[in-house]
Amino acid sequence: MKLYYAAHTCALATHILLEEVGADYSTVRVDFGKSEQRSPDYLKINPKGRVPALVTDKGILTETPAMLVFVAQSFPKMNLALIDDPFAFAQVQAFNSYLCSHLHVAHAHRMRGPRWVDADDTHSIEAMQRKVPESVGGAFAYIESDLLKGPWVMGERYTICDAYLFTLAQWLEADGVVPSRIPKVIDHRRRMSERATVAKAIAAELT
Amino acid sequence: MKLYYAAHTCALATHILLEEVGADYSTVRVDFGKSEQRSPDYLKINPKGRVPALVTDKGILTETPAMLVFVAQSFPKMNLALIDDPFAFAQVQAFNSYLCSHLHVAHAHRMRGPRWVDADDTHSIEAMQRKVPESVGGAFAYIESDLLKGPWVMGERYTICDAYLFTLAQWLEADGVVPSRIPKVIDHRRRMSERATVAKAIAAELT
Repeated sequence: MKLYYAAHTCALATHILLEEVGADYSTVRVDFGKSEQRSPDYLKINPKGRVPALVTDKGILTETPAMLVFVAQSFPKMNLALIDDPFAFAQVQAFNSYLCSHLHVAHAHRMRGPRWVDADDTHSIEAMQRKVPESVGGAFAYIESDLLKGPWVMGERYTICDAYLFTLAQWLEADGVVPSRIPKVIDHRRRMSERATVAKAIAAELT
Repeated sequence: MKLYYAAHTCALATHILLEEVGADYSTVRVDFGKSEQRSPDYLKINPKGRVPALVTDKGILTETPAMLVFVAQSFPKMNLALIDDPFAFAQVQAFNSYLCSHLHVAHAHRMRGPRWVDADDTHSIEAMQRKVPESVGGAFAYIESDLLKGPWVMGERYTICDAYLFTLAQWLEADGVVPSRIPKVIDHRRRMSERATVAKAIAAELT
């Protein structure tokens, strides 16, 4: 498998998971500084012009929740998505869906405002940025109070949710979220960062 | 199973699927006009204060992509999520993830602006509303050109994606999308509306 990624994006979640399962994979960096995500070559990989994208022997996949389950299903013995238990799997999926459609979306209003208002509307762009600490903070508060069972997201079992939560938790200080209000999330992030697989994926993206 | 829904929301996707599989289920209407989604009783069902929510004998589920797969997994012989083929399932999941995190989110900027800017910031609320025809229209254009294989979303096989696309396609005229630019989506919507299961779910929500 081949993962197209950019540093500091949600691609890290799949990168971590590829390490966790011991997959045979390579990575290709997409340079956002050079707008490579909108280059003709990359648009052939992912017409949406975003990362991540995962090249498999069956074809190309996008969308983190789908990619995480695909990698987990490709290494079924590790059971990282709890897919054989429909209710547990639905909880895994609901968590990941909340991250992609709510938490990540709230975060994106800080730097991707022109998706939702005109790019030259400075007032609205800044208004969206000011709301991010509250909207992202609210999502993390809900994860803290209701979703993160501990020690892992789903409880005793480490799952794909942990790689995804850790990835989005990289951004919370920059989003203006107060870490002391979400101690379980911060402790989870610390324990994740101590995993060799996680450290290896992060190092590979930053060097 | 018991589905909490409100009319004209994405709850319809799960409602349709429950009809498709012939599930033994009941529904409970949540009256947004009375803000019932934020009532103490409903917040015990779904602390997020949104619909849908699905009560199962194992517990309560939220988030449409998770609920759709759960219902499909509960009726495995119909194979409506293609879950036993990891790549096909990943395509199903990627499609649903795009709908929830991109299309539905773009749509929500028309009526749920205060999620992302202050509610009294009329300039920004209206700026977001003005962008909706472009952002939602762009998502439908991408579905039209790249994702909807025909006759169903995944090609010859009817899947959970069809119920979800049909549901979000209910809103496109109100979002200012020009139907003539997305003829495959409109044809898909028409064919879906002719299914007895779909007609039954819609009628139940509107009466």
